[in-house]
Amino acid sequence: MSQAELFIKPLTSWMDGSGIDSDIVLSSRVRLARNICQIPFPNRANIAQLSKVEENVEEIIPELAEATGKTYQSMSIDKLSTLERNVLVEKHMISSNHIMNPENRLVIVSEDDKISIMVNEEDHLRIQCMVSGLDLGATLEMASKIDDTIEAKLDIAFTEDMGYLTSCPTNLGTGLRASVMMHLPGLVFTRQINKIMNASTQLGLAVRGLYGEGSEVIGNIFQISNQLTLGFSEQETIDNLTSAVLEIMTHERAARKALYAQSPDVVSDKVWRSYGVLKYARTITGNEALALLSEVRMGIDLNIIHNVPAKVFNELLVSSRGNYLQNLKDNGNLSPNEIDRQRAAMIREVLMNGSND
Amino acid sequence: MSQAELFIKPLTSWMDGSGIDSDIVLSSRVRLARNICQIPFPNRANIAQLSKVEENVEEIIPELAEATGKTYQSMSIDKLSTLERNVLVEKHMISSNHIMNPENRLVIVSEDDKISIMVNEEDHLRIQCMVSGLDLGATLEMASKIDDTIEAKLDIAFTEDMGYLTSCPTNLGTGLRASVMMHLPGLVFTRQINKIMNASTQLGLAVRGLYGEGSEVIGNIFQISNQLTLGFSEQETIDNLTSAVLEIMTHERAARKALYAQSPDVVSDKVWRSYGVLKYARTITGNEALALLSEVRMGIDLNIIHNVPAKVFNELLVSSRGNYLQNLKDNGNLSPNEIDRQRAAMIREVLMNGSND
Repeated sequence: MSQAELFIKPLTSWMDGSGIDSDIVLSSRVRLARNICQIPFPNRANIAQLSKVEENVEEIIPELAEATGKTYQSMSIDKLSTLERNVLVEKHMISSNHIMNPENRLVIVSEDDKISIMVNEEDHLRIQCMVSGLDLGATLEMASKIDDTIEAKLDIAFTEDMGYLTSCPTNLGTGLRASVMMHLPGLVFTRQINKIMNASTQLGLAVRGLYGEGSEVIGNIFQISNQLTLGFSEQETIDNLTSAVLEIMTHERAARKALYAQSPDVVSDKVWRSYGVLKYARTITGNEALALLSEVRMGIDLNIIHNVPAKVFNELLVSSRGNYLQNLKDNGNLSPNEIDRQRAAMIREVLMNGSND
Repeated sequence: MSQAELFIKPLTSWMDGSGIDSDIVLSSRVRLARNICQIPFPNRANIAQLSKVEENVEEIIPELAEATGKTYQSMSIDKLSTLERNVLVEKHMISSNHIMNPENRLVIVSEDDKISIMVNEEDHLRIQCMVSGLDLGATLEMASKIDDTIEAKLDIAFTEDMGYLTSCPTNLGTGLRASVMMHLPGLVFTRQINKIMNASTQLGLAVRGLYGEGSEVIGNIFQISNQLTLGFSEQETIDNLTSAVLEIMTHERAARKALYAQSPDVVSDKVWRSYGVLKYARTITGNEALALLSEVRMGIDLNIIHNVPAKVFNELLVSSRGNYLQNLKDNGNLSPNEIDRQRAAMIREVLMNGSND
């Protein structure tokens, strides 16, 4: 994907709904935090030191390409427009943290969007790998390959007793954060979600909204990730998360079935009404759009709605976000009302084209 | 219209939207209350006396046909099923009062549905004439022709000082109740409706819901009628009501224009969302359907919605009523939930066929 395409195409390859169990698990992601020895952590480093990190990492790109068989592009955050930066956040390619101080910040992205490496975020290196559906093993393998390549060239901060050293102690050890994005309308509508979330927390997992820490839950989408990085191996971490996700998935499928079995009319009425509103609304906020899209997606999964391909939901998840819409039109000069109109028009267009009723 | 058609066809000719200003005035109606001398009012009459009234009136049908150039059918209320009786009420052909004690009650209906004569309702004769749009003059002329024919054959109770004698003193004098059914979403949404209604009351007019006295306002439809029958001529009564209706109509048009001019996005979003819900809902109550239909109709009138003919609204006004739906299916054995599903299915079908989006 060229840089221009990255900002314009709504669907990233790891969100295309092609993966395992991707009706419920939208995507799997791992992130490794790494730091280079002898250089202070980014929030303590001076410009020369930050530049040194950038140089070090950019030099390794050819080796990364060879090790992974992918091509990469490196982008300086401060050379991107504010809008482009925000689109990358909405597409989960970088964190919102990474655009706070854009100077001497890089992001290196693979052409298939599945790998992104943030340089000089909270740590010198944040290696992210993402795939569609539930497959944390594949993402860990991919991330480890990149990590191995980097460690072969750079001296990475690591001690026998503490593992990888990181800027924030919560990442100390493996430096691994594994997370899955789950669509859980069944558990929300049957009011089981809090019970499930509490149980997850007790298992050492964190549950958050679509945009990670501090973000609210919209569209019934939840990010579930490991909290502990010390005292567990990488494999144990992803095994633990995977088994919790499988458990939640079983509950979600059961909840949907029970919901539909108990009151098929109520459920089909709900999902069809949401479809009707999405198809005809002339103005819609991002949060309302996601809530309605979530119901339509459940309707597709429950075989109530046949005429819309499931990936329309995944696509609209990103394309209904404000900055993405801004970037498509008028270079960011849209008012909030204009964005809401633009969003409604875009959703209408997708549903009119994507459906055949 | 044959008797069978009367119960199955949703649209009566005086509701087809063909009349003057029928975008706002759905229909005009006059009703004359008459009683035959020497026979007690229906609530005091015995069976023999009620039968006598029925006979007297049925004998005049040939003269009525000649005077008006229409054919008539006479139906005994007690020979109709409960459902059929209720359909006639929903179609405004008879009052809900008229089916309370169905024995010795008749209704005589013209083949074009524009004339209905209730026999032995509160008065011996209740002559009703209805047309599409605003044209009280035409309805009064039609009713007077029938009245003249009846008075030429029967001795009608009338005194010089009190006019026509009626069972209830509120009808004494002309025995005339003129009313118009108005669709006033603009005044409702701009919150001017109470002001307008209070002014109407001060002008001696009564304001009620879709089904007359005691019925709630649904679908932003109001019945406006004269309250006074003593001290005014028939012509004065309809002139007074017509001028009030014209005034309200001016306010309604101004309200719609202002609403749309001030916030075109909000208005078009509202009407399109209502359309979307009507088109896709799988279950819907009668009142919700009317509320949404009212918004869609306003959207048609404001040229926001082009792909639906306006008369779909008028048709659905009747066909979304519970008894009409009952009568179409399973002979009245539908549960309330089944009616709501049936209603949603019927509306969907009409909108899918009637529209071309």
